[in-house]
Amino acid sequence: MQTDLSAALDIGGTKIAGALVDARGRLVVRASRPTPADKDGATVMRAVAEVVAELAAGPDWARVAAVGIGSAGPVDASSGTVSPVNIPGWRNFPLVAGVRALVGELPVVLVGDGVAMTAAEHWQGAARGHANALCMVVSTGVGGGLVLNGRLHPGPTGNAGHIGHISVDVDGDPCPCGARGCVERIASGPNIARRALANGWLPGPDGDTSAAAVAVAAHAGDPVALRSFERAAQALAAGIAATATLVEIDIAVVGGGVAGAGDVLFTPLRAALRDYATLSFVSGLTVVPAQMGTDAGVVGAAAAAGQRSRLDAFAPMP
Amino acid sequence: MQTDLSAALDIGGTKIAGALVDARGRLVVRASRPTPADKDGATVMRAVAEVVAELAAGPDWARVAAVGIGSAGPVDASSGTVSPVNIPGWRNFPLVAGVRALVGELPVVLVGDGVAMTAAEHWQGAARGHANALCMVVSTGVGGGLVLNGRLHPGPTGNAGHIGHISVDVDGDPCPCGARGCVERIASGPNIARRALANGWLPGPDGDTSAAAVAVAAHAGDPVALRSFERAAQALAAGIAATATLVEIDIAVVGGGVAGAGDVLFTPLRAALRDYATLSFVSGLTVVPAQMGTDAGVVGAAAAAGQRSRLDAFAPMP
Repeated sequence: MQTDLSAALDIGGTKIAGALVDARGRLVVRASRPTPADKDGATVMRAVAEVVAELAAGPDWARVAAVGIGSAGPVDASSGTVSPVNIPGWRNFPLVAGVRALVGELPVVLVGDGVAMTAAEHWQGAARGHANALCMVVSTGVGGGLVLNGRLHPGPTGNAGHIGHISVDVDGDPCPCGARGCVERIASGPNIARRALANGWLPGPDGDTSAAAVAVAAHAGDPVALRSFERAAQALAAGIAATATLVEIDIAVVGGGVAGAGDVLFTPLRAALRDYATLSFVSGLTVVPAQMGTDAGVVGAAAAAGQRSRLDAFAPMP
Repeated sequence: MQTDLSAALDIGGTKIAGALVDARGRLVVRASRPTPADKDGATVMRAVAEVVAELAAGPDWARVAAVGIGSAGPVDASSGTVSPVNIPGWRNFPLVAGVRALVGELPVVLVGDGVAMTAAEHWQGAARGHANALCMVVSTGVGGGLVLNGRLHPGPTGNAGHIGHISVDVDGDPCPCGARGCVERIASGPNIARRALANGWLPGPDGDTSAAAVAVAAHAGDPVALRSFERAAQALAAGIAATATLVEIDIAVVGGGVAGAGDVLFTPLRAALRDYATLSFVSGLTVVPAQMGTDAGVVGAAAAAGQRSRLDAFAPMP
């Protein structure tokens, strides 16, 4: 039997998604469960076990070469544990050992969800063909991951690319992480909405005060809404420029709900990038929207598993 | 004849230093010339040729396996050209081709001077044994380089680790690079001195207004001098924390003249790092002084040549 599939798990605060993924990134089998995020750790693990059991029930399971897990962070790939902020029952929870117990001899690879998303964009999406890339999700939080020298760079603990918590304003507002002026503190959806409201933006009759509603107002020309997106874009640009200046990337891929705002984010983002990415070796940097949809998590976990277990079939395609 | 040496060139605005370096990082032969930085590009290249000729004149030249060049930046390793800010006669100057013409069949490797210093600290100095490290020079400017996954990470153009020009204050003072609030704009020696003077620090009777003089005043308890170093330390901490959060490093090595200030820099730097390196996977990050002296440039250029030409003898030692 040819072992040409990766099993993938994408573990978030809302859903535990699983899939068997082939060498072209196609999902051959899917399974999922809601995350019992308010329950104890063992209950959450049982939901993971149900997803694995469903994937393992069919004949394709015999084709699986490796298991990849992308999890909400923080994760610690070196110890195989996870402590997702939005799954309180899991603190230093031995997820890799738990999954290993379910899958027998298969190698199990753990990465953070930002790294998994990056693996997906590099394998099948907007970063395809780029040897050095930053991929990020701008949503309720801001996360990311890196491709360096043509390979995923998860770092020793699987958290590398955590661009949401670099400070671009040393004297800025306190961030829940403990630092000040983090990219996430300025550019996340809730912070875009908060800033617009604080500066006098009035929501519509439906009372929607989300970043998506601010984006609608910005598209209609509301100057306060536009300025809130511009400030988010400035913080993102400083963070992307810092990343490029530190490790030399030539593309930044931006996904997540806030990226769905389109031009009201990307136009000021590209303008601000010219202000902050000034050195000759980063001046060619481009920013593009993400291409992978809701399956990015499982596709990326599969890609990470493939890279780590050195399956050529899962190498990022040129 | 065993080819167990690297030839190394360290090209700065003041001096062109050369050496033959053995597999333990010892300098077997040395040569140097002053940099004719105010002359045309061909004149500068002739000084490089004189250094190479002096190195090549002895019997040890036959033992050379590769040539490493560390140059003031910006450099472009992909095209083999350099444009050092303080050597105006060299703009996109084809240094690699020029050196190749002098050394025959030997492989020639070009990296920026921050990358070279990092290679030296990783091979023989304070970053030895660390698989993931940031090394930096804080002096007239602020430069640096990265070790990732146990290997030097020069990036495609040889400029990676350029921490001096990441913005940690998006609304901050304009930097000569064109951005705002760069680490260098806050933490370099001239900026430490400028800030101290602007805030009322008075130099001694010798009229010395250098950062070294500010350091002497700080050691003596001058509050304005101390505050200027504390502000520099805050910017450096934000930059180091950003680097750790992006790529996962466990040590930052700080050298250069400003690091010579000792505790007045390192004590607030370590304190500020606790404020900005907050996520669990970077909380173990340490900051230490550089160990390599003035030979770091040639030792690092030799190490870079060794890594690139895959000589096991030049692999960073465990």
